Amino acid sequence: MSAKQKRFFLSEDEIPRYWYNIQADMVNKPMPPLNPQTKEPLKPEDLYPIFAKELCHQELDQENAWIEIPEPVREYYKYWRSTPLVRAYGLEKALGTPAHIYFKNESVSPIGSHKLNSAIPQAYYCQQEGVTNVTTETGAGQWGAALSYAAKLFGLEAAVYQVKISYEQKPYRRSIMQTFGAQVTPSPSMSTRAGKDILTQTPNHQGSLGTAISEAIELARTTPNCKYTLGSVLSHVSLHQTIIGLEAEKQMEMAGEYPDIVIGCFGGGSNFAGISFPFMRHTIKDGRKTRYIAAEPASCPKLTRGKFQYDFADEAGYTPLLPMYTLGHKFAPANIHAGGLRFHGAGVIVSQLLKDGLMEAVDIPQLETFETGCLFARAEGIIPAPESCHAIAAAVREAKKCIETGEEKVILFNLSGHGLVDMASYDQYLAGNLMNYSLPDEMIEKSLES
Amino acid sequence: MSAKQKRFFLSEDEIPRYWYNIQADMVNKPMPPLNPQTKEPLKPEDLYPIFAKELCHQELDQENAWIEIPEPVREYYKYWRSTPLVRAYGLEKALGTPAHIYFKNESVSPIGSHKLNSAIPQAYYCQQEGVTNVTTETGAGQWGAALSYAAKLFGLEAAVYQVKISYEQKPYRRSIMQTFGAQVTPSPSMSTRAGKDILTQTPNHQGSLGTAISEAIELARTTPNCKYTLGSVLSHVSLHQTIIGLEAEKQMEMAGEYPDIVIGCFGGGSNFAGISFPFMRHTIKDGRKTRYIAAEPASCPKLTRGKFQYDFADEAGYTPLLPMYTLGHKFAPANIHAGGLRFHGAGVIVSQLLKDGLMEAVDIPQLETFETGCLFARAEGIIPAPESCHAIAAAVREAKKCIETGEEKVILFNLSGHGLVDMASYDQYLAGNLMNYSLPDEMIEKSLES
Repeated sequence: MSAKQKRFFLSEDEIPRYWYNIQADMVNKPMPPLNPQTKEPLKPEDLYPIFAKELCHQELDQENAWIEIPEPVREYYKYWRSTPLVRAYGLEKALGTPAHIYFKNESVSPIGSHKLNSAIPQAYYCQQEGVTNVTTETGAGQWGAALSYAAKLFGLEAAVYQVKISYEQKPYRRSIMQTFGAQVTPSPSMSTRAGKDILTQTPNHQGSLGTAISEAIELARTTPNCKYTLGSVLSHVSLHQTIIGLEAEKQMEMAGEYPDIVIGCFGGGSNFAGISFPFMRHTIKDGRKTRYIAAEPASCPKLTRGKFQYDFADEAGYTPLLPMYTLGHKFAPANIHAGGLRFHGAGVIVSQLLKDGLMEAVDIPQLETFETGCLFARAEGIIPAPESCHAIAAAVREAKKCIETGEEKVILFNLSGHGLVDMASYDQYLAGNLMNYSLPDEMIEKSLES
Repeated sequence: MSAKQKRFFLSEDEIPRYWYNIQADMVNKPMPPLNPQTKEPLKPEDLYPIFAKELCHQELDQENAWIEIPEPVREYYKYWRSTPLVRAYGLEKALGTPAHIYFKNESVSPIGSHKLNSAIPQAYYCQQEGVTNVTTETGAGQWGAALSYAAKLFGLEAAVYQVKISYEQKPYRRSIMQTFGAQVTPSPSMSTRAGKDILTQTPNHQGSLGTAISEAIELARTTPNCKYTLGSVLSHVSLHQTIIGLEAEKQMEMAGEYPDIVIGCFGGGSNFAGISFPFMRHTIKDGRKTRYIAAEPASCPKLTRGKFQYDFADEAGYTPLLPMYTLGHKFAPANIHAGGLRFHGAGVIVSQLLKDGLMEAVDIPQLETFETGCLFARAEGIIPAPESCHAIAAAVREAKKCIETGEEKVILFNLSGHGLVDMASYDQYLAGNLMNYSLPDEMIEKSLES
């Protein structure tokens, strides 16, 4: 029992007023996305039909390191930001580690995850440009819930295509979106040409992020004043998420420490980018020695076992070609419960950083993530989202190394969300019904070839 | 869009170090609980077999206005306290009211509700007295989840009897308790004499708080080093919850305002007590004119339509006789979704305060609570628990009156919990499947007679 401070907050006027665009500081810039027909590098204008213009510019901006957060966005950030930086005394004690473990608690967002950090500016820029309707896809439903709420804040209509199997398995997430007033459609649906094609070719198709992306893009393209939005992978989403690390940097200063290791779980990359990029600028610019670890599922290991190459972001191949670590856009990940990490590719910035050795990646088997989730829940009181359990597991691995070496390393990880809407997966774990998935090399090779 | 401050926090050293015991300041003290056999007033010792000794003394303490919060409890409070006091700019705008609406956001607790405020000291006192096992009952599961986590913090084994219908209908809440390591048994069960009696007399009995209380008390009585714990109704639970109002008082000062109206939803009374008693002391001692409104469900209206009389707290009549507003301990409330408010009686302190005209009560029909819950979710981003929707609905009624009168009244309510584990009930509401329940006077009379 210690009287030392547990949680660190910023006052509202200390909340950062700029996002950090790491592209401006990178020595090796990310390679450009390509038009799949012409193979020409994309210009912002090429993306105008799909995204709000301001977001298209943010996406490809390699000049400006600091992008001002619009005032209305900052006003809504105040609804839950700053999120607490927490010293995990309970977890340290449970492990018996000399390490100092901190986590940034993004689960306190109204939606329960970090996704709102980007949903609000995306909805804002759309509204500013006269857009009235937004579309998106969602798998587990975290992003869909965030966008539904953000759309409501700016008076926009939201239409969400939710992967059909998830729509049926996670009715609570659907209800959350509907409570915020969004229209939710299970994908594939008969409401789009893409959906019809899929359902006539493959009746009873259970849906995937690929089908949902195709439907959401098609709806945006065929509807006046309607834009598409995405919850991860893209560089402008990572940009918005840097509010996490920028706050954490100030809060670590309040705690009188600086992280030796920064950890985030990894799906498309935006949550990892959010916690790590603001610290990484000191590594890039001042040579500060900090390790950055992305924690991905062993069953979807694009960073640890994928290839760096140009690939599509969706199964149907509607998106631009992106230079990224990928398992192939036809890769079908095992049905693990961390739905938010079941994506075949990594964002272009993170891919370049990994290629350049500025960061590391580890893959975590499913059972280890839930074991760690239960340990964390009992020690810190917060039941973590299955996705976030990957970051905690990586942090616990590092903290256990410190037991052996006796080092008081400072470990910071991002708790991207809580698991209160994912209890069915904990239920399965506690009942002994979950398993690890082995992924033979041949499966990855095959997927990359197709 | 305003640049005014949205949320107010206390630093860790500003978190109150004492709970407030309103019994000491009340002019008319609560009447004593009675031994049902002898009809003699209870002494603390009479409760020793059931509760930790310190809690027995707190229960009947009418002398000490301030009870020190033990340091280990304060250390764990820091895991999520202070909770934010929030200015509901979004809700004010949605209503177009000149009222200033504030809410204390207890939903940010790891468990998602205020229940942890009492679970932690209850587990602490048990552990201090050498208790190794704790039991309790839970209906909706909020209290059971809080106790499960608190027990784990102090190394205690927790056994929770969950009302059988709720055990089956709300598997997520059960999983939360199990994730924290508790044993959860649907009640009535064959594991106790009380349970066996009920199940042989009424096969397929769906359970009630009454059956679960009986089983939990029996287990505590028949197990060495085992005590029973309760999540509301009792005076020591209300005492622990005053941390809410004590924080809110300091935070309102930071906001430069003082509430004209303080509102809490009402089940057994502890959450209402928590937000209102610290303010009420200024009404009792200094004559400060503030209105205190308890918001109860129209289908379980003990405050607005019950009688003040001695009654049991459980259906089987195992508990002491309590002087309280009650609908009769055999009252079977309609199956509304605010499971935490489905209790036939009110705590003894609140009952006396209502009798003495120091507070008011309103009853809210179910559909109005969900309508208000959706309005609040879209305006403030937080999906409220069905229980908390009662408090919001009462606040909205008052804020609407201000539209007519033009008064800038300051309204404070307690957001006791979020609704993320209650989405099935929102789903039912949005699908048009919920209804209001009418409760004829004769039903109440009949229940009070039996």
